[in-house]
Amino acid sequence: MTQQGYHVAIVGATGAVGEQLIDTLDRLDFPVASLLPLSSKRSAGKKIMFKGEEITVQEATAESFEGIQLALFSAGGSISQALAPEAVKRGAIVVDNTSAFRMDEDVPLVVPEVNEEDLKNHSGIIANPNCSTIQMVAALEPIKKAKGLKKIIVSTYQAVSGAGVKAIDEMYEQSQQIVEGKEINPQVLPVSGDKNHYQIAFNAIPQIDVFQENGYTFEELKMMNETKKIMHDNSLKVAATCVRLPVETGHSESVYIEVEQDGLDVPGIRQLLSEAPGITLQDDPSNQVYPLASAAKGKDDVFVGRIRRDLDEEKGFHLWIVADNLLKGAALNSVQIGFSLIKLGLLK
Amino acid sequence: MTQQGYHVAIVGATGAVGEQLIDTLDRLDFPVASLLPLSSKRSAGKKIMFKGEEITVQEATAESFEGIQLALFSAGGSISQALAPEAVKRGAIVVDNTSAFRMDEDVPLVVPEVNEEDLKNHSGIIANPNCSTIQMVAALEPIKKAKGLKKIIVSTYQAVSGAGVKAIDEMYEQSQQIVEGKEINPQVLPVSGDKNHYQIAFNAIPQIDVFQENGYTFEELKMMNETKKIMHDNSLKVAATCVRLPVETGHSESVYIEVEQDGLDVPGIRQLLSEAPGITLQDDPSNQVYPLASAAKGKDDVFVGRIRRDLDEEKGFHLWIVADNLLKGAALNSVQIGFSLIKLGLLK
Repeated sequence: MTQQGYHVAIVGATGAVGEQLIDTLDRLDFPVASLLPLSSKRSAGKKIMFKGEEITVQEATAESFEGIQLALFSAGGSISQALAPEAVKRGAIVVDNTSAFRMDEDVPLVVPEVNEEDLKNHSGIIANPNCSTIQMVAALEPIKKAKGLKKIIVSTYQAVSGAGVKAIDEMYEQSQQIVEGKEINPQVLPVSGDKNHYQIAFNAIPQIDVFQENGYTFEELKMMNETKKIMHDNSLKVAATCVRLPVETGHSESVYIEVEQDGLDVPGIRQLLSEAPGITLQDDPSNQVYPLASAAKGKDDVFVGRIRRDLDEEKGFHLWIVADNLLKGAALNSVQIGFSLIKLGLLK
Repeated sequence: MTQQGYHVAIVGATGAVGEQLIDTLDRLDFPVASLLPLSSKRSAGKKIMFKGEEITVQEATAESFEGIQLALFSAGGSISQALAPEAVKRGAIVVDNTSAFRMDEDVPLVVPEVNEEDLKNHSGIIANPNCSTIQMVAALEPIKKAKGLKKIIVSTYQAVSGAGVKAIDEMYEQSQQIVEGKEINPQVLPVSGDKNHYQIAFNAIPQIDVFQENGYTFEELKMMNETKKIMHDNSLKVAATCVRLPVETGHSESVYIEVEQDGLDVPGIRQLLSEAPGITLQDDPSNQVYPLASAAKGKDDVFVGRIRRDLDEEKGFHLWIVADNLLKGAALNSVQIGFSLIKLGLLK
């Protein structure tokens, strides 16, 4: 650390998450000595604002990382594959927001509230989990700690900003066209690189990321595998169904859990969550208080409500978990990993 | 039956479901000798079209049902409570689309593909199940018949038309206001008669119908209780989370099931569903073929896809079930009950 802080690079500085990364570093007063915004050749030359200063975005190359101490990547898996090792080679610690390295054995996959200690085993690259995973494990960890966790069945209600700026534009444009009775021409969602594109406005698409051989989407498998890795429990049963909605920002999740031990009830869960870091309890059915994506947008916390006991399973509970997928689901968690690295003396 | 058919009354003729009832009677050539559209005092005097003829909507009173043989009710629970017994007293069979009588012991709750035979035990009133229940039991019955059914965990993605015409208007109006950067003023959803109203456009609201003491909404309890009644299995475990989306028409459901017997696999489920009445299989992940609300609107069938085995439970499977909530979820099922009554010789 210099007197002023660290030399930080943002890879994918002009994307939806990149913008939030820059804003979050500023907003949370991360100790930044210098900020280097990097992007593809196409976006290089654009200007970004950081702490009132205009900085020109540069094309990301291997050499960009000379002198960089912390590199936050969010420019797609192939960019991370190519450049994260180059950044590490030059002495930077990488916090990667893509799925490129998440399941690698020597890459810690970290949600600071859950498994901050895993950072100590890093070999240069640290992975930021998938957005839909982060908010779920953050909300479930306090319950797991108290009573153990046996099983999770989750159905998601995911916002389009998880698919990038083009997906947001498509959603609003399509909504307007449908309201005006015009023809629509889907070209981005559900997956820009996949064969078919479907209407997202006024619809619900049960596909996020591409399909795998076993009939699950990659998004679903990410939730299932990452949850086990973050929670250090390969015997944890996790099943996910991931669905894209016409919501700009804010993922919602309908989560069923079975805990291991007896003696948990709804007031007990409320108590655990109200004391947990990064969690806001919003659970007062009689006053219609529950988390909403529209209210979570722009907020740092994970919001939990609709907590109720399963009427058939004594150890089964249902929850509704909502968070800003660009913040806790991406940028905020990455910056929090940066703070944890400092706290643990790992960022030099 | 007269030479031309039956004397049929529609209660709630000007509502979202009422319009579909009239259209469905016509489209499926239900034998109608005369059609009597009934409504509240406020809507009386409006005109509806049936088989190319204009008919004036009349105010529904006890006396309206003189000479009526089949009365299809869809005007809210309190209207059914007040007038369904009057219709029965005058010799009509009532098919009620509200929740007023669904759990009454002497009222059959019927999805013809599942429990048509229950009609034989009617005492004048037959209940049409809740929209979200109908499509789920229609899709699961063939699996239950083959392998038994132990447990259902469902999270819904429900369209606003289930909350009536005002909810549809609110959704489109709000969407336009948000796209244009204007202020919004929610007044209908999630529940018009409840205390608070929330943004539905570009959002997901985890409340349908009012909250009960146990933290579940009435919609969730309807799905749970009605499913057991229709499937004749009080030991069946059913848990529901019901969520309202900015979709005009077409409910989607993420459904996890556990079957009782061994030996079921995904091809087996596909085979069962492809042979089932009223079901269309849409399940080809490699070509991104799965049910979509936008494609189900205006269709009679229940669409099923995303069928996959749970990776932890040998007898666990996941499905994505979609149907037009105004058709199979309401009007179509009511008219199908009418046809079943004729087939079983119960409508005289």
